[in-house]
Amino acid sequence: MKRPAAFSLLGGAMLILGFSPSSAAQSTFVNTLMPQPAHLRVGSGALPWNTAVTVGLPHFKNQRLEDAVDRTLMQIERKTGVPRQRAITTSDASSLTIDVDGAGDAIQSIDENESYTLAVTSTGVKLHAATVVGAMRGMTSLLQLIQPSGSGFIVPAVQIEDSPRFRWRGLMIDVGRHFEPVEVIKRNLDAMAAVKLNVFHWHLSEDQGFRIESKIYPKLTGEGSDGLYYTQEEAREVVAYAASRGIRVIPEFDMPGHTRSWLVGYPELSSDPGPYTIRREFGVEQVAMDPTKDSTYQFIDAFLGEMATIFPDSYLHLGGDETPGTQWKNNPRVVAFMRAHNFKTTEELQTYFSERVLELAKKHGKHMVGWDEILNPDLPTDAVIHSWRGAESLTAAARRGYHGILSQPYYLDGMKSAEEHYLADPLPSNSDLTAEQRKFVLGGEVCMWGEHINPLSIDSRIWPRTAAVAERFWSPESVKDVDDMYRRLDVESLRIEALGLRHLTHEGAALRELAGTEDTDALRVFASALQPVSFGDRYKGQHTDQLTPLDNLVDAVRPDPPTRHQIAVLVGDLLKTPSANEQARTQLERQFKSWAAAVPTVETQMSTSPLLAVARPRAQQLLQLSQTAEEALSYLSSSSKAPAGWKQAKLAQIGTAREQQALVRFTFVDPLEELVKAVPEQ
Amino acid sequence: MKRPAAFSLLGGAMLILGFSPSSAAQSTFVNTLMPQPAHLRVGSGALPWNTAVTVGLPHFKNQRLEDAVDRTLMQIERKTGVPRQRAITTSDASSLTIDVDGAGDAIQSIDENESYTLAVTSTGVKLHAATVVGAMRGMTSLLQLIQPSGSGFIVPAVQIEDSPRFRWRGLMIDVGRHFEPVEVIKRNLDAMAAVKLNVFHWHLSEDQGFRIESKIYPKLTGEGSDGLYYTQEEAREVVAYAASRGIRVIPEFDMPGHTRSWLVGYPELSSDPGPYTIRREFGVEQVAMDPTKDSTYQFIDAFLGEMATIFPDSYLHLGGDETPGTQWKNNPRVVAFMRAHNFKTTEELQTYFSERVLELAKKHGKHMVGWDEILNPDLPTDAVIHSWRGAESLTAAARRGYHGILSQPYYLDGMKSAEEHYLADPLPSNSDLTAEQRKFVLGGEVCMWGEHINPLSIDSRIWPRTAAVAERFWSPESVKDVDDMYRRLDVESLRIEALGLRHLTHEGAALRELAGTEDTDALRVFASALQPVSFGDRYKGQHTDQLTPLDNLVDAVRPDPPTRHQIAVLVGDLLKTPSANEQARTQLERQFKSWAAAVPTVETQMSTSPLLAVARPRAQQLLQLSQTAEEALSYLSSSSKAPAGWKQAKLAQIGTAREQQALVRFTFVDPLEELVKAVPEQ
Repeated sequence: MKRPAAFSLLGGAMLILGFSPSSAAQSTFVNTLMPQPAHLRVGSGALPWNTAVTVGLPHFKNQRLEDAVDRTLMQIERKTGVPRQRAITTSDASSLTIDVDGAGDAIQSIDENESYTLAVTSTGVKLHAATVVGAMRGMTSLLQLIQPSGSGFIVPAVQIEDSPRFRWRGLMIDVGRHFEPVEVIKRNLDAMAAVKLNVFHWHLSEDQGFRIESKIYPKLTGEGSDGLYYTQEEAREVVAYAASRGIRVIPEFDMPGHTRSWLVGYPELSSDPGPYTIRREFGVEQVAMDPTKDSTYQFIDAFLGEMATIFPDSYLHLGGDETPGTQWKNNPRVVAFMRAHNFKTTEELQTYFSERVLELAKKHGKHMVGWDEILNPDLPTDAVIHSWRGAESLTAAARRGYHGILSQPYYLDGMKSAEEHYLADPLPSNSDLTAEQRKFVLGGEVCMWGEHINPLSIDSRIWPRTAAVAERFWSPESVKDVDDMYRRLDVESLRIEALGLRHLTHEGAALRELAGTEDTDALRVFASALQPVSFGDRYKGQHTDQLTPLDNLVDAVRPDPPTRHQIAVLVGDLLKTPSANEQARTQLERQFKSWAAAVPTVETQMSTSPLLAVARPRAQQLLQLSQTAEEALSYLSSSSKAPAGWKQAKLAQIGTAREQQALVRFTFVDPLEELVKAVPEQ
Repeated sequence: MKRPAAFSLLGGAMLILGFSPSSAAQSTFVNTLMPQPAHLRVGSGALPWNTAVTVGLPHFKNQRLEDAVDRTLMQIERKTGVPRQRAITTSDASSLTIDVDGAGDAIQSIDENESYTLAVTSTGVKLHAATVVGAMRGMTSLLQLIQPSGSGFIVPAVQIEDSPRFRWRGLMIDVGRHFEPVEVIKRNLDAMAAVKLNVFHWHLSEDQGFRIESKIYPKLTGEGSDGLYYTQEEAREVVAYAASRGIRVIPEFDMPGHTRSWLVGYPELSSDPGPYTIRREFGVEQVAMDPTKDSTYQFIDAFLGEMATIFPDSYLHLGGDETPGTQWKNNPRVVAFMRAHNFKTTEELQTYFSERVLELAKKHGKHMVGWDEILNPDLPTDAVIHSWRGAESLTAAARRGYHGILSQPYYLDGMKSAEEHYLADPLPSNSDLTAEQRKFVLGGEVCMWGEHINPLSIDSRIWPRTAAVAERFWSPESVKDVDDMYRRLDVESLRIEALGLRHLTHEGAALRELAGTEDTDALRVFASALQPVSFGDRYKGQHTDQLTPLDNLVDAVRPDPPTRHQIAVLVGDLLKTPSANEQARTQLERQFKSWAAAVPTVETQMSTSPLLAVARPRAQQLLQLSQTAEEALSYLSSSSKAPAGWKQAKLAQIGTAREQQALVRFTFVDPLEELVKAVPEQ
């Protein structure tokens, strides 16, 4: 690997792990990199970013690289207001030199070299990478480095040597249960590239919808999609769009379960004659493909052959999760087949199916990925295990020589905090896998299941939380300071918004629509105290199906909104020295007062908005909880005692506020409970 | 015309012009219709909108109608949270019966019948229209009628008989100076349909860019577009999208001036050999096509023939504005040609050109529309005059028997108020045209020129102001209550947002980007006092060209933000009874206090944002002006006198605030000046 001179001069000593807080003497560098690079050293000085900046591609270049350079320069232009350099030269003495060894894999592989080095001095930026994808990763870091300074912008002097910890860093989007137009997919690919994710897992078929055109089997979308699907041309466009951003596209055709939409047009694929309709309910469906008929495999063979012309990646996801045995057990022919093959359980029959489709995947040049149910004793070890039910299946698979991908801790519809996802490591250092076994862990995937999302809300469910997980997949395990992660996540969230994502604008628009007015200041304050309940709680609470309108308060409010972490930190700070931490107390008081003050206006708006009115109990609770917080803060700051019974009453109030109501929950009940518990009582 | 029974029973007496304020005895109807229908009568009772609603298309139906019904039901579903009826029957006893006589024109014409009647009782809605387009207009009104009532939604009982005042109700978007992707065009078509506009005028070529693929002349986009253009397939998609919403698409190929982008690939079209590059500067360019060569017309002929296969509308816009004579006068061959034809001026030569291209348009089955410069003595009367330099050209044209369209008062880049646009009538009742001449006025077009817009900001420049003009074009001339217009415009703005438009979210996103943080409460308050300067002031102030980044405060703030009209109304109210109008005084005080309070935080953010920092003088001025307002309010409410010289000093301060600065201006200086002037002085 060729290194730019400026970099090699510094030698190994400069490679300090993680972020070095900069001293004023060195530079004004504020680290907002996300993900954090493997090695970073802060230098002194900075390159001014102005119209004098020249750009050179001294060695290799191709269209993909030039497009990536263009995109980066446009993003920098928008951020700085400095018109971009449009004349790209081949000079290696440019202020920004992008030195790339070669194109990289013709079709980006799992082993694509994504490493890069970035050396910034006061006279220039030298980016070096072995491949175009590596250069893209470096350009993303460059964009993140640029910061205001005085009346202009600078790139602070740093030395970065970076490469990903995991090879497989994915985001799965389920477009089966609710369809997402190409435009939504594209903007999410932009955001993925911004945080160096490299796999888009496209969950293209479900009981509730078949989403990609097949010319061989036109009834798949003709009868199984409600007209909501991607044409082959659109799918190719998405693949190209992803490739130009260094992202592989892995399509998933879930089978033999989760296939009711296939059976609407082709009931003969099932072991029950049907007829079938598109499923509207969620949850596990009782139908599955018939694994005993050769015609099933002929169908899959031809279909996969067709899909292989659209999706060039060498991996293919064939699902395999939640396959019910009901239909199989009820069909005497299938039962006879099982007996003849000496299969004692339907799981064994599924393994037979998995082996046969794995052979078909191979025939079309693909490795097969499947959800962890496929991990049965007879499964060939060239299958990749996608772990969704627990990290144990990942380690079990690695021990037995299967490659694996972790998703279990990264389900966005659980509506957990970025923090919780962030701290879940796919391969913690205390894992008891051997060094050899550890290599089988390819990485992880964030999962965005489709029950409760639509094109309006999806961005706010994926971002910014996924950026935190992207750092988990890319950066060293030791990078896990949660407060610092949130500080940088706030900045990254805005960078992602600048790409066109709507995770921040969605809430305001949805609240305006709910309230029927632009005057939503109070409602926004109210909403800032709320987050959606988990997938399970909503499903149970609302009995949602595919046709349920997603236009409630729960669809508007943000998962893990800023107040959650802020209040937890402030309460933590305060409780260290309850009577002395003025600043934390003042900020907490201000926040709770502002919530209490918003309630009357919100209640008035609720009286004219049927869709808001269901949350009326939440408004009353917010008022009460805010008063409780103010009382607690007052006792703590004055070191006085609450009357006997106060604590019990307030804890009961908090308990009530924790109960399911209106599909939303408060962001601050845990720290509030700590606060109440800390109050001394008479 | 077949009428639904419920409607004809009521007879002519129910047709009351304009809006009847409803009495409590009748119903709870709140009129938020925009545009206002020609005839509306409020009945008593209401139809509950719930899952029991059935939908029937008893007579005619086609795909276009079914798609429109689907879209309407989806919009209502989203608004109400009531799952939509998916089984559309042919029953004429449905709760929503959509009774359409026939398809209407195969290709929507200028004479398409857009009228409809809508009869709502407590048992059902009967919509009747002669054509599918008429039914679309009626469905738009139905959506606007639905309102909350108790814990659900209702359609209040009304009788509407409606048809447009003008046949041509357009929006022009210039994609030449800055390109707008298909997605932007589509969402703007959605918004147009929401306010019953029916012509999308697509300004597809400019000195700064040629935006549609020609397969015959590939260098038009190959060398004249920077790669930013619509493929023919995309253009067809836009035409189909518009047609399915009852909108005609009129492409414009501006010629013989405004054509430098054509000349980059085809310099032979000009009378000067070139070579040419894409123009980056704005303003009038000195190049034009050569009107003396037959090859010019052969090129145009072939090109228009190709475009006719994409754009089926029978009208075609060929520009003709701002044609400079310079190149022609400098070319001896052109001068000789003029002499040979006895043309004394280059205007006469342009008329010769206009006549020839009009013949070519005719050859391809098109009527030619041109900007008002083409109105010269020899112009055939089948040309349509598009008036941009003044309403006089429209009336002059009508007197001479030309059809005309008015745009002069509807230039959005003037950054005028909705009010100002709204009150400009294309054909005021005091016009001295004869009844026969009046028929020549086809209607009007709102113009969105492209110098200072990009895909992020465009929606906020077009909407909601264009909705007010849409009412001007559709509703009776007598509908012109500005306060009522603003009341309804606020609601319409949210309905348009629900379609996916970004006119309301853009400001917040842009402010976050400028500030580099999500904490923009103070900045939003600051921005609410500001609006962009006019096109001319910005162009002069910033020396913009096509490559100028559009990421300043001026690009964030809204034209005609709500505070402008609100403060004008409150000050007007207050000055009627300065010492007695408590409510107006309190509201004004609160507003000015809130502005003053925002300034310190805004100034802090400006110190770390180079792009915001230019507006620092505006922050200081806002503080001073707010203090002035508070002082004035205090004098007026206490009926006390200001010290001598106070008024002069404050008026000077207001004068300074009116001066050009930071490309933004205050929304409230006029009413503030009135307030100050009203204060009695010692």
